[in-house]
Amino acid sequence: MGRWEPDAAGRLREAALELFEERGFEQTTVAEIAARAGLTERTFFRHFADKREVLFRGSEGLRDALVGAIDGAPKSAGPLDAVTAALEASGQVFDKELSRRRRAVILANPELQERELIKLASLADALGEALGRRGVAALVARLAAETGIAAFRVTFERWVTDEAARPWSEHLHETLTELTELALGAPAPAP
Amino acid sequence: MGRWEPDAAGRLREAALELFEERGFEQTTVAEIAARAGLTERTFFRHFADKREVLFRGSEGLRDALVGAIDGAPKSAGPLDAVTAALEASGQVFDKELSRRRRAVILANPELQERELIKLASLADALGEALGRRGVAALVARLAAETGIAAFRVTFERWVTDEAARPWSEHLHETLTELTELALGAPAPAP
Repeated sequence: MGRWEPDAAGRLREAALELFEERGFEQTTVAEIAARAGLTERTFFRHFADKREVLFRGSEGLRDALVGAIDGAPKSAGPLDAVTAALEASGQVFDKELSRRRRAVILANPELQERELIKLASLADALGEALGRRGVAALVARLAAETGIAAFRVTFERWVTDEAARPWSEHLHETLTELTELALGAPAPAP
Repeated sequence: MGRWEPDAAGRLREAALELFEERGFEQTTVAEIAARAGLTERTFFRHFADKREVLFRGSEGLRDALVGAIDGAPKSAGPLDAVTAALEASGQVFDKELSRRRRAVILANPELQERELIKLASLADALGEALGRRGVAALVARLAAETGIAAFRVTFERWVTDEAARPWSEHLHETLTELTELALGAPAPAP
């Protein structure tokens, strides 16, 4: 172990985001990230497995928030209520400015977009398993989980691009209202 | 071009599926697939870019069926009706036995599972774009498309694993009924 660096992970993340924004994810090396942060490559690799992990490190926290909310929902709650609680909780995980920057980097790179899809699919699997532990039948759990992740993605898009800065929960509830209207076959309202 | 081979693509696909089943996708080479089919590697590469394409060739047909049904839905149809028409149409694309075999090969290989996720995400994008052409607002179109693909995945799972061999449309309509009940917050019925 080298000497202790205060908030090395945070400095490395900021340096990485700056470089990804300036020259693109592909064109940035770990050596450059470490140099920009004023740290060594060795310090980088104590915090992150590779440069991609700088962008995907937060996945475990998001998964824990989603699954924790499902596991913690009252036994009487139906699948939708449990998923809604999970989606509410997920909003607490994100810093909006970091989310916005991370999203722009990912949108610029097909490989990162694929990784993001795989992360979302793995979140859907985790949600489905958590619903299964509540006794929800397997295919219903999967439908609820996949639909929940669809609602998550749309809520996240609305929230992260909202210049009026309305809170996550407002975007979530508007998304769920639209989903109900879609499922009922009513024409969706103009946004 | 070499000499013409009757149904070379079909023979290559059958040989590839047999080998993927017998020894796994990773452990199978294009040379082995061609040999099993009684054809040359050169013939293989006239039909498929690589061994993975043997499994994913059908994607364009599925996309055309989904998008064609959205584009062809009456102007008065809401987003859900249009997506339902697309999901109905998608069932026409699949041969059940081939689908079952292909699914088993994909489930055994994480790289193929990732490719399948990316294919499904690209289908969701295509559905969302088709809904956008109908004047559906962008985020509503995306929600309807993502939810539609969630319903597609669940319908496909139900149908392909159904030993009673009930038709695609029955599984689809049961899935959409569950989705409506989920969206209304009612407890989902036991399957």
